[in-house]
Amino acid sequence: MQLGVNYTPRQGWFHSWQDFDPAAAAADMRAIASLGVDHVRIFPLWPLIQPNRGLIRSIGLDEVVHLIRIAGEHGLQVNVDALQGHLSSFDFLPAWLSTWHRRSMFTEAAVVESTAEYIRRLTAAVSAEPNLLGITVGNETNQFAFAPHPDPHATTPGQATVWLKTMLAAARAETDTLVTHSMYDAAWYDSAQPFGPEQAATLGDATVTHSWVFNGSARLAGPMAEESLSHAEYLTRLAAAWHASGDELRPLWLQEVGAPTTEIPRAEAPEFLLATIERASQVPQLMGITWWCSHDVSRDLLDFPEVEYDLGLFDAAGRLKPTGEAFTDAVRRIRRAETAHQKPVAESAETIIIDDLNSDPRDSLGPGGAVHRAWIAARQRDSGTAGPRLTLRSRLESASRPHKGDELCTTTSH
Amino acid sequence: MQLGVNYTPRQGWFHSWQDFDPAAAAADMRAIASLGVDHVRIFPLWPLIQPNRGLIRSIGLDEVVHLIRIAGEHGLQVNVDALQGHLSSFDFLPAWLSTWHRRSMFTEAAVVESTAEYIRRLTAAVSAEPNLLGITVGNETNQFAFAPHPDPHATTPGQATVWLKTMLAAARAETDTLVTHSMYDAAWYDSAQPFGPEQAATLGDATVTHSWVFNGSARLAGPMAEESLSHAEYLTRLAAAWHASGDELRPLWLQEVGAPTTEIPRAEAPEFLLATIERASQVPQLMGITWWCSHDVSRDLLDFPEVEYDLGLFDAAGRLKPTGEAFTDAVRRIRRAETAHQKPVAESAETIIIDDLNSDPRDSLGPGGAVHRAWIAARQRDSGTAGPRLTLRSRLESASRPHKGDELCTTTSH
Repeated sequence: MQLGVNYTPRQGWFHSWQDFDPAAAAADMRAIASLGVDHVRIFPLWPLIQPNRGLIRSIGLDEVVHLIRIAGEHGLQVNVDALQGHLSSFDFLPAWLSTWHRRSMFTEAAVVESTAEYIRRLTAAVSAEPNLLGITVGNETNQFAFAPHPDPHATTPGQATVWLKTMLAAARAETDTLVTHSMYDAAWYDSAQPFGPEQAATLGDATVTHSWVFNGSARLAGPMAEESLSHAEYLTRLAAAWHASGDELRPLWLQEVGAPTTEIPRAEAPEFLLATIERASQVPQLMGITWWCSHDVSRDLLDFPEVEYDLGLFDAAGRLKPTGEAFTDAVRRIRRAETAHQKPVAESAETIIIDDLNSDPRDSLGPGGAVHRAWIAARQRDSGTAGPRLTLRSRLESASRPHKGDELCTTTSH
Repeated sequence: MQLGVNYTPRQGWFHSWQDFDPAAAAADMRAIASLGVDHVRIFPLWPLIQPNRGLIRSIGLDEVVHLIRIAGEHGLQVNVDALQGHLSSFDFLPAWLSTWHRRSMFTEAAVVESTAEYIRRLTAAVSAEPNLLGITVGNETNQFAFAPHPDPHATTPGQATVWLKTMLAAARAETDTLVTHSMYDAAWYDSAQPFGPEQAATLGDATVTHSWVFNGSARLAGPMAEESLSHAEYLTRLAAAWHASGDELRPLWLQEVGAPTTEIPRAEAPEFLLATIERASQVPQLMGITWWCSHDVSRDLLDFPEVEYDLGLFDAAGRLKPTGEAFTDAVRRIRRAETAHQKPVAESAETIIIDDLNSDPRDSLGPGGAVHRAWIAARQRDSGTAGPRLTLRSRLESASRPHKGDELCTTTSH
């Protein structure tokens, strides 16, 4: 299992790309490596590298390579997210997509072509680095297809698929490493979202999830209740429900998960972290967990949502926080279990079936929805085991399995 | 009279700020100095220097100072525009003003305070440079108060005034040089605009105009007709109509004027330039003309409106264009006349009176409007003289002058 952190530079947050400082980056990577992790996920800012549709700044690409090498010197692999795009409430979009140039980033031919070219050039620039873990199309690019982001040409699911395939192909053309895309969880929880579970489960080399309990799960039954602690596990198992028959071994990547102290009391955040990672790590096919994030946002930087100032494993002065200690502990436990060839926790005997035959089931999947409630109940019945699997009724039907029933969330042994 | 050009870097346009190259800047300044001009107007990109509301990058400020010094080495004064803001159809706005952070740049207290702080810091950084000509709040900042720029909290004229005063005071606090603000011409031609002639004529140290005949004036009677050739003169005289009684000596600055070859046939652009500058330079109190622009935008850069690729006095390869030769000629003529203490061209004996007593007159002021037509007719009657003055009826009334009449555009001797 890959264990890593999302790298949020201690000095200047992602604005530090404008004043790339190898010494500051090295200090950050040294600190991150001390956590025992094997990788970081990094976030170049798209409009800084491609400020004009026809201009991809080679110096910008060089700096990404430089950061990868610094990470490598500290024994870290690197996943590069291309389209930022959206980060911690801020949008970094090139000027060629706004006001006079307002057009859909997902469907306008010239825009799509130039965006793909950016991903291709970025991937080509980093592909020879031996510690390249992979390329992600961008951080939660589905943010841009929904409110509050205006999408003047409302994207359809079909267009979303075409766009993702184009972006993934652009990266694939230049690297044999892991090529993925990522979405925020409304993709699974909101039937109005054009980007959804099918794209998560079928496009790219792994199914990627980002788990944030400020989505309501921490408030269902309290921040340290099962609903909160197992949200990352739930979302990741849920995402796997869309894996195609025959593709059960498709890797799952919990690419973002954090302890938002606006929801989780600070004093309980370390325990939340340990419990969250313990549960998530029981998901079969989980290839990695990447914690959000390495460093707190400095209070000198304004306008961030309150939650963002306290997500780091290190504080803004570079000191390891209690969550950082807990994370180190979690990494050590997982590594010890691996070394000891410890048997994985037995899976629950139950399976939660999602009825997707007659309609889009997504509105019942979110925190507090029927499927989520059934899953939590099943998980609590089998307290000694990992959480139950989730599967789509349509998958069962197409596999002509005997597990049929009329109820939503029928449980079945497997 | 100050004669200069708006500096559009040959390599990389304004994106060159990201890769500031003193040698490239020096080559550009050397070329510009060869035109015989005394100043350039430069355009830092606001979101590059203040990417977070709490972060003003000192390296970004240093690079502005560096460019000013390079210009100084070539004998050029420099006017610095702060808020870009809007440039050639592209908006460069910081992420702290968009989507999740969407709020009015003109009225939201925290935004206004931080924007003023940016202007103050930028001015402070450059104020000791001996060749600093002045500070402009930003390029056509009124663009952001009107379509297609969304202004979620529609700005009122009163709020526009407060905002401009705040920004001008921020610059004034740090420099004794010329402090100005600039607006695109809808401020005079469209009664729905919250930024208007009063602010142009009363705020800052000079009344600034930007003349672009693609606003319709080149199509009224043909690109080489009086309506087109005298638009810069007309707009500048029009702006002076709002000068307060007793403030008749307030300087006027034609800060932008260009020959858009989408409207003016290329072969006629040099003649258009000569005629435009000749007429504009006859406006009393005109303190300067700053041509747009030094260098063509390279065709490597995409998505610019077609007109922007051919506005340079030098082409994208750095070669002087026919308009560049004509501009050099125009500069030489003005300098020769100054040296010879040549008497200014006699002013027209007529005055065009704008009836502003009962309603906002702006919808009759634009190209083809009643006032513009009357002014053109008067200018053509007195072909040996400069164009007629324009004055507000309210100014005449308040001065208790005898020049009263019932008609719009009454002519009167003076």
